[in-house]
Amino acid sequence: MNFEEKTIATREIHKGRIIDVREDTVIMPDGSTALRELVAHHGGVGVIAVTEDRDVFMVSQYRIAARCMMLEIPAGKLEKGENDPEAAGRRELTEETGYEAKDFTYLGAYYATPGYCEEKLHLYLARNLTYKGQHLDEGEFLNVHKMKLDKLYEMVMNNEIIDAKTAIAILKAKAILG
Amino acid sequence: MNFEEKTIATREIHKGRIIDVREDTVIMPDGSTALRELVAHHGGVGVIAVTEDRDVFMVSQYRIAARCMMLEIPAGKLEKGENDPEAAGRRELTEETGYEAKDFTYLGAYYATPGYCEEKLHLYLARNLTYKGQHLDEGEFLNVHKMKLDKLYEMVMNNEIIDAKTAIAILKAKAILG
Repeated sequence: MNFEEKTIATREIHKGRIIDVREDTVIMPDGSTALRELVAHHGGVGVIAVTEDRDVFMVSQYRIAARCMMLEIPAGKLEKGENDPEAAGRRELTEETGYEAKDFTYLGAYYATPGYCEEKLHLYLARNLTYKGQHLDEGEFLNVHKMKLDKLYEMVMNNEIIDAKTAIAILKAKAILG
Repeated sequence: MNFEEKTIATREIHKGRIIDVREDTVIMPDGSTALRELVAHHGGVGVIAVTEDRDVFMVSQYRIAARCMMLEIPAGKLEKGENDPEAAGRRELTEETGYEAKDFTYLGAYYATPGYCEEKLHLYLARNLTYKGQHLDEGEFLNVHKMKLDKLYEMVMNNEIIDAKTAIAILKAKAILG
């Protein structure tokens, strides 16, 4: 059964730099109405870049939402209207790690938290890497780490990776590369 | 290097039913200040329940943030101050699918989108299942599906699962159960 909800009204709550927030009134499958808080976001892209030697380029940065340094794959936001996530992924990989990749394999698109957030994140596996030079955005502070894919896989299985996109990317890269 | 950001001011934007939104002013590692839009959320729990025959209980529901029906593992929100995610996972599993599990294995906690959102989701693998009867919350409309773990794994690898927590749970369950 399809339980589609039809939006009949929208109340704008916040127009921000990274997110907008609104409250929609919807008609439910049983004809009743309900309110839905929704976060709008242009989406993002994440890249797991693996060398011939099974090294992976990871970044760690401070995430105030988690109040800790977090180990993640290189990633970034899409701009409004940007509809080429692979190009965005190539850009973010080079900006954050300095590497360019000959081969990009699509690992799918994922809703981060579909109960209230429109953010969809595209993931890629990057291979055949060449160093071109890192150039971080202004105000971007991060460390780059070279880590073994098998060590990262072990960290995911031991619940030591706490970023959802990073866990998916490592698990899928390990499944593809063995 | 630790690039901790220290909050020096907070502006409340929205106090909602599921999320709060605020803008923090922070001091960056270089001493400059920056604004951070932040979504507060009490966190959640998701459960992949696998039978002896490798059947998995999945739910599909309409997700207005994605404007489609979405196939997911059973999941739910934690209440404010609720600090026993396993109990919440057991509750959600029974409410949505009707099953109780003897064994719960922790699959870790994941930030859905740590750039701006405090939501942390706890995942569990549930085994040794007994049917007790479904009892959905009021206003909750969903279908329950029994699907093979190997079919779900194939769907993740073919990029057909679009919910992040569901992809992680399937990949980890497959890694654990073989």
